[in-house]
Amino acid sequence: MGVIYLDHLSGTPLHPKVKEAMIHHINTVYGNPVSDHRMGQAASQALEKAREQVAALINAGDPTEIVFESGGTESVNHAIKGVAIGLREKGRHIITTNIEHKSVLNSLRTLRLLDYQVTSLDVDAHGLVDPAAVEKAITPDTILISIMLANNEIGTLEPIADIAKIAKKNKVLLHTDAVDAVGVIPVDVKSLGVDLLSLAANQFYGPPGVGALYIKKGTPVWPLLDGGMQENKKRAGTENLIGIVGLGMAAELAKQEMAERAPRLQALRDRLQEGLVARIPDIVINGHPTLRLPHLLSVSFKYIEGESLMLMLDDEGICVSTRSACASGSLRASHVLISTGLDFATAQGTLLFSLGRDNTEADVDKVIQVLPGIVQTLRDMSPLYKKEQAG
Amino acid sequence: MGVIYLDHLSGTPLHPKVKEAMIHHINTVYGNPVSDHRMGQAASQALEKAREQVAALINAGDPTEIVFESGGTESVNHAIKGVAIGLREKGRHIITTNIEHKSVLNSLRTLRLLDYQVTSLDVDAHGLVDPAAVEKAITPDTILISIMLANNEIGTLEPIADIAKIAKKNKVLLHTDAVDAVGVIPVDVKSLGVDLLSLAANQFYGPPGVGALYIKKGTPVWPLLDGGMQENKKRAGTENLIGIVGLGMAAELAKQEMAERAPRLQALRDRLQEGLVARIPDIVINGHPTLRLPHLLSVSFKYIEGESLMLMLDDEGICVSTRSACASGSLRASHVLISTGLDFATAQGTLLFSLGRDNTEADVDKVIQVLPGIVQTLRDMSPLYKKEQAG
Repeated sequence: MGVIYLDHLSGTPLHPKVKEAMIHHINTVYGNPVSDHRMGQAASQALEKAREQVAALINAGDPTEIVFESGGTESVNHAIKGVAIGLREKGRHIITTNIEHKSVLNSLRTLRLLDYQVTSLDVDAHGLVDPAAVEKAITPDTILISIMLANNEIGTLEPIADIAKIAKKNKVLLHTDAVDAVGVIPVDVKSLGVDLLSLAANQFYGPPGVGALYIKKGTPVWPLLDGGMQENKKRAGTENLIGIVGLGMAAELAKQEMAERAPRLQALRDRLQEGLVARIPDIVINGHPTLRLPHLLSVSFKYIEGESLMLMLDDEGICVSTRSACASGSLRASHVLISTGLDFATAQGTLLFSLGRDNTEADVDKVIQVLPGIVQTLRDMSPLYKKEQAG
Repeated sequence: MGVIYLDHLSGTPLHPKVKEAMIHHINTVYGNPVSDHRMGQAASQALEKAREQVAALINAGDPTEIVFESGGTESVNHAIKGVAIGLREKGRHIITTNIEHKSVLNSLRTLRLLDYQVTSLDVDAHGLVDPAAVEKAITPDTILISIMLANNEIGTLEPIADIAKIAKKNKVLLHTDAVDAVGVIPVDVKSLGVDLLSLAANQFYGPPGVGALYIKKGTPVWPLLDGGMQENKKRAGTENLIGIVGLGMAAELAKQEMAERAPRLQALRDRLQEGLVARIPDIVINGHPTLRLPHLLSVSFKYIEGESLMLMLDDEGICVSTRSACASGSLRASHVLISTGLDFATAQGTLLFSLGRDNTEADVDKVIQVLPGIVQTLRDMSPLYKKEQAG
């Protein structure tokens, strides 16, 4: 049975050209970029090429504004904790939202232990944060605003450019977790106006465990990893050069193929959404109807559990997830869905479909074909559903 | 011209079987280990296999005591900062030595900003720390001792097992940076008696940018990377699975080949040392004569600069380094050599030879053949040397 992979938010398969670049690197280069001899120089060239490729993807002014990290999570931790330490004499207040990725929320939890204060803002039913609320939350003690560019569970795109204007006006730094947006939709750090931006290769056909942090020149960010002088003294440690070469190539390909990728995935996503809405009653489409990532569809199926749906789809060779990968293993309902006002039971019945470049209309049609039966089977076993039908 | 690579401390070439394992993984697996569907399970199996391979190399009691990290630097940062936060209510004093890797020293520098206190101990002329001095430095506020197993510039092996007994008696946690020892000499966390141990794949023919932290069960270590529930909730973020598969295979091979590798490298190193001592006057062999890593030779050549020596050897196709890779780019003399009592000028004339499994007697003999001439050429241009000869 062929597998239909619709869980690209958990990790994309490597692009064939990314594989090729990584395998070529594995077979030819092994020096350490910091070494001054010839082997070091070959490694250093590979590293700096990747830095340019990533800088180009997000329109950074200078490749030295790109710091390689071990993924989106480290990038976020570095941005938030690095500013917290760098500006600890200026203030200890940070603003965020209730629907951020766990790497943001839990970084802030740790900072609270170290006497930092956090304001976490509500979102509306579509998951949008109100820029006016951000401005209202700023105090003289505020050093950082960290708000995501695109939500990783419902896909809602936040008004980061507007928030950047507010941040600038109030002389507060702005970090955006753009992990689920970079490489999927056009992201330009200059037009967004952010000081810090996090991205990860495994959202756009690069390898897992590799990412980057964009640090606008002059932004006072302390290293998260202390040690040697790598990455322009912003991130110590010998680089994961094999992964970084993959990230660089993935960035170059994303830039090249962006204009074609996003509309194609959006057409597939819309087909999936329309098919499910037409065939399955009592479902909720989560996220903003239009300000939303093109490749993501979050659907809540009332009266049943997402986990059961996911496992029954797996039996059909269809891979989806119930929530963001980083929250897997948690039994609690999604904090994102609860924040948009969804009730607990409906939130538990959620599936996350995320499409990728290998997906076809046939894949989508297969889901539209098999899912209604699965949903009905589970609902027929659901006491909640029977009660609702009887009532 | 063939290249003679004698800079294995900066990074080892990948073992052919490590390459094979990584390329196989690149071509076959792409799921996220946290996903519950079939693609996730394949990834999860690869991850847990690597965890077992690393646990076996260092004789950890349970694979769950292994946490994958983005290299030795993150592993060290995690151990030190993780204990600092985990035990912040118990105390804020940490003991280390003056010859640690920059990842230790600079992690402690950051903790000082957050109101932690550090005692940094002297070493003797061979680079050895005195366990009695460690015991004397312990106060009721001490939460952690961090001392390296093998020094990365002079190779000296510290008496960690003795220090562990002292740590245990005084109920203080012990972390050892074993990055330059693991995979090179036998390392057993149980017989050492440590609570935390850092290792990195690129010291034993695995990929760069991948490492691990051994955390003995029950050790109160806060995550350094906050976010999702990966790595038994000890290190958030999607894993660098391609690199981790390489680390796992490198660990398995190191365990298999250990008995053969270390004596062979030591014989080559001794041949190099004897050859240089016999042919070049006014040199200093750094580190302990016997309690020393088998594959490392640190030699200080009086009256000249290590940097010039390194570049002239590079012209001959011989790659060596002047100091630890992580300190490259710094113009200051090595803090390790200064700590052992070497004068500044002599410390500046130091070369670090580190041997690996591909090196042969012919490689060593080539160095013994060409280096005396290079040293003499540089000395003939050295004002310091002329003055010394005249005086």
